[in-house]
Amino acid sequence: MGYKSDIEIAREANKKPIMEIGAKLGMEPNDLLPYGHDKAKVSQEFINSVQGKEDGKLILVTAINPTPAGEGKTTTTVGLGDGLNAIGKNAMICIREASLGPNFGMKGGAAGGGYAQVVPMEEMNLHFTGDFHAITSAHSLLSAMIDNHIYWGNEQEIDTRRVAWRRVVDMNDRALRQITASLGGVSNGFPRETGFDITVASEVMAILCLATDLADLEKRLGDIIVAYRRDKTPVYCRDIKASGAMTVLLKDAMQPNLVQTLENNPAFVHGGPFANIAHGCNSVIATKTALKVADYVVTEAGFGADLGAEKFMNIKCRKAGLAPDCVVLVATVRAMKMNGGVAKADLGEENVAAVQDGCANLGRHIGNVKSFGVPVVVAINHFVTDTDAEVAAVKEYVEGQGSEAILCQHWAHGSEGTKELATRVAEIADSGVSQFAPLYRDDMPLFEKIETIAKRIYRADEVLADAKIRNQLREWEEAGYGNLPVCMAKTQYSFSTDPNLRGAPVGHSVPVREVRLSAGAGFIVVVCGEIMTMPGLPRKPAAETICLNADGEIEGLF
Amino acid sequence: MGYKSDIEIAREANKKPIMEIGAKLGMEPNDLLPYGHDKAKVSQEFINSVQGKEDGKLILVTAINPTPAGEGKTTTTVGLGDGLNAIGKNAMICIREASLGPNFGMKGGAAGGGYAQVVPMEEMNLHFTGDFHAITSAHSLLSAMIDNHIYWGNEQEIDTRRVAWRRVVDMNDRALRQITASLGGVSNGFPRETGFDITVASEVMAILCLATDLADLEKRLGDIIVAYRRDKTPVYCRDIKASGAMTVLLKDAMQPNLVQTLENNPAFVHGGPFANIAHGCNSVIATKTALKVADYVVTEAGFGADLGAEKFMNIKCRKAGLAPDCVVLVATVRAMKMNGGVAKADLGEENVAAVQDGCANLGRHIGNVKSFGVPVVVAINHFVTDTDAEVAAVKEYVEGQGSEAILCQHWAHGSEGTKELATRVAEIADSGVSQFAPLYRDDMPLFEKIETIAKRIYRADEVLADAKIRNQLREWEEAGYGNLPVCMAKTQYSFSTDPNLRGAPVGHSVPVREVRLSAGAGFIVVVCGEIMTMPGLPRKPAAETICLNADGEIEGLF
Repeated sequence: MGYKSDIEIAREANKKPIMEIGAKLGMEPNDLLPYGHDKAKVSQEFINSVQGKEDGKLILVTAINPTPAGEGKTTTTVGLGDGLNAIGKNAMICIREASLGPNFGMKGGAAGGGYAQVVPMEEMNLHFTGDFHAITSAHSLLSAMIDNHIYWGNEQEIDTRRVAWRRVVDMNDRALRQITASLGGVSNGFPRETGFDITVASEVMAILCLATDLADLEKRLGDIIVAYRRDKTPVYCRDIKASGAMTVLLKDAMQPNLVQTLENNPAFVHGGPFANIAHGCNSVIATKTALKVADYVVTEAGFGADLGAEKFMNIKCRKAGLAPDCVVLVATVRAMKMNGGVAKADLGEENVAAVQDGCANLGRHIGNVKSFGVPVVVAINHFVTDTDAEVAAVKEYVEGQGSEAILCQHWAHGSEGTKELATRVAEIADSGVSQFAPLYRDDMPLFEKIETIAKRIYRADEVLADAKIRNQLREWEEAGYGNLPVCMAKTQYSFSTDPNLRGAPVGHSVPVREVRLSAGAGFIVVVCGEIMTMPGLPRKPAAETICLNADGEIEGLF
Repeated sequence: MGYKSDIEIAREANKKPIMEIGAKLGMEPNDLLPYGHDKAKVSQEFINSVQGKEDGKLILVTAINPTPAGEGKTTTTVGLGDGLNAIGKNAMICIREASLGPNFGMKGGAAGGGYAQVVPMEEMNLHFTGDFHAITSAHSLLSAMIDNHIYWGNEQEIDTRRVAWRRVVDMNDRALRQITASLGGVSNGFPRETGFDITVASEVMAILCLATDLADLEKRLGDIIVAYRRDKTPVYCRDIKASGAMTVLLKDAMQPNLVQTLENNPAFVHGGPFANIAHGCNSVIATKTALKVADYVVTEAGFGADLGAEKFMNIKCRKAGLAPDCVVLVATVRAMKMNGGVAKADLGEENVAAVQDGCANLGRHIGNVKSFGVPVVVAINHFVTDTDAEVAAVKEYVEGQGSEAILCQHWAHGSEGTKELATRVAEIADSGVSQFAPLYRDDMPLFEKIETIAKRIYRADEVLADAKIRNQLREWEEAGYGNLPVCMAKTQYSFSTDPNLRGAPVGHSVPVREVRLSAGAGFIVVVCGEIMTMPGLPRKPAAETICLNADGEIEGLF
């Protein structure tokens, strides 16, 4: 086709020194801690210095339910940020960091794509500025201190069968999912079953992304429930005296990372919690800092709008006092076709009827976002095989829903391809029409919160949960956790809990398998279906072909 | 006493921007990858550009057998480097990086002490530039790929009882010393016993410190033996196809880290392999690069000279084609007293006779170093309680050994306290009297190499090893590993394998418990005694009191 790959485009980027990018935001050289010449952390002193400023406008980019066809949510986030700058606005983007481990299984995820990317792409998919390593270290320290506490006499009387804190590693290592530890006799401790999750699943990750500053971070870390006693009372991280040292390990990781887009516009890339057992958004500190230094901040949330936007609104915005001024919902003609029943192999052929059928999925997301009181614009992320008739069908459908859809060509043309979207989004954000409110009140009973999301967002008929789960929720309410939001962990591929149910299903049930209390992060995780917190490597891992070439460039990562 | 603590002195340091420090060595801003404003990695391009230059002089700082009184080897390394600069020489130092994990057990190790320190001390004891995290990642990737290989059909026919590759984490976590992994059924793999070591014990660490460049690194990683088949043939890392991706993960970690002393002189701090199961020296790439940019390079080796200097000479210098021009042997009056039988509590009292008795330990180290053909100077690292008579006793003893001892006061006075030492060391190094040769030839049989070290360095009568160990060594010789050097793993507290046998014992035996092949690093590990590769945390871990204070400074780490 003659198209350049993402990595080829990224390598040709005309990157500016990161100090120059920071200068656009009013940052002096001493406000930035450089990591190489193209990455930097923003100092806490700088963050403190801008607190008196007015906030810019907050724009959330979310998407339809993901399909194997790809939607380009990050690509659109980058493209919109560049588009806003191109039309003369002072804009920046806030996205999540990538996890290192999974890149050695499947090929790595670029930060955006085509001519809408954030660079340096390779570092962002490897060690970057070390944030995830710091999170792994802080998590591992707590793990070691818990077993050490038990070893030296167990003053807190931890029930070793009820240690809730697992270990983590930033690697896809299925052999560590379930282990028996402390084997080998007296000097190695008390044998017990445990296991490892991948680092992004750590509650430390969720906490780092929700904490407002280092003091809040330490408080939340202390709030983590690490185990239970025989009488079922919780043992907190602070009982093990680990939260101070964990905070020291996370001191630099708390500072937002500044990088740039291919068009040399500023981007914060910071934090990366799972979008199922956690809330799936970049850090609060990055978003809030961005709002102080830019007039428009474009950010994204994980998975489709039913999970990502819902959690962005009900968890991140609620907790951080944020309110989006506009939501951009990304859709593609190809994804509409798949939602309309077309197989991946047949996506190259024009099929307007299938596009029209698939739009039901898009329509429901539009309605859902509006139910938060926030205006929504659909961005049609253009793909070369899209026909005019197919694009017109999406636009027509969206207009029928009382909204508007704009064709975007940032993948091929960078900011030139998003000027129309950027202009409209800025108008809407500036208009003040957004009247954001979370979907449920803090004081609603926990089970009702789950039902509210299931019925109003997933459009399910009912939530199924056995007595054990309902009792557990009531116990947490009695223990003072009733005011927490709920964090739904379900498949991202469907509004329902069945990943094969595309489109806009109705009449389904949402079975709750398990509930977990993330007392430090400050939410109740509601597990509806199989959730994998430690991936495995495939038969032919990407790692087998990743190497340095003769020029010292990385091959095989993308 | 009114003395400032190491951390107080370090915090008062008048640090210069790291770019200025690099400029002293001829490094342009683009030759350095900054990590903050006070740390930087040296680019491979710069390293390539200086290969045509002549080498400076290499000075090794080693010590008597360590005692609880402390010797100050790193402090003297830093003090001597500053002293050389103070007398007008272009000098730099090369030392090892600290492991993060142990700092949460006992209080952290400063990089030097008093007015002879390297800064930034806190970062160097925490994440620093992420090298150890990269090593942990590379090691973990190989671990995951081995079990993944077995999971997907085990094409290499690995005997799962004979997987030699354990896992690592940079944390003191005794609960992970021995585990059963891959539990939980079919989807998690084949259960087997394994365990974790601390990251510094990883063969990847030893390899990174011995590799000359990225190509050599990848080759050595490929050479690692990860398991054996039922027919006892080895399965290599390259059979699992992991070495390319591991090299990608270690790309930046291979570049030396530039920091500075309190007196703003340049220091490379790079690599940190164990000094028992590995060779205990900073990286070859750092030492070799330093020799190209400085006229005098002062480096150190782990533990006392019987382990550290022996391995520096027989492993690092042999493999890297290095030759020391002068050795500085650090001793203290207090340590001499302890070697002379004085208890720690009584070290404050003058005891010339005990000093004289304890000098036997020093004397043997002097003789040992000379046996490598290298001139030796004793540095008496001054402590406030030392009396003139005690110092004189050490000097007199050393002179009787045909060598010289110089009193140094760098802890209290920085370079002012080492000018005499620096002057003498520079004279000796410049004189060209050193006629370095390793202690044994490459082609000597492995068991004879062990005997040579035991008899000529430890002055033991015999090496005890059962038939199994002798057969193993012969098998490795037949497999082509007979030309490797041996890496002795024994207690650092004595010339013998009994840690309580101070002074200069004779007539002892060296029992070999186990031999291990580090085929990637390129040595045979000879284990003589209990070697701990995963430390535990103490009853009251330092972590319990480590925290950030109100000014955002780290408390409790030192």
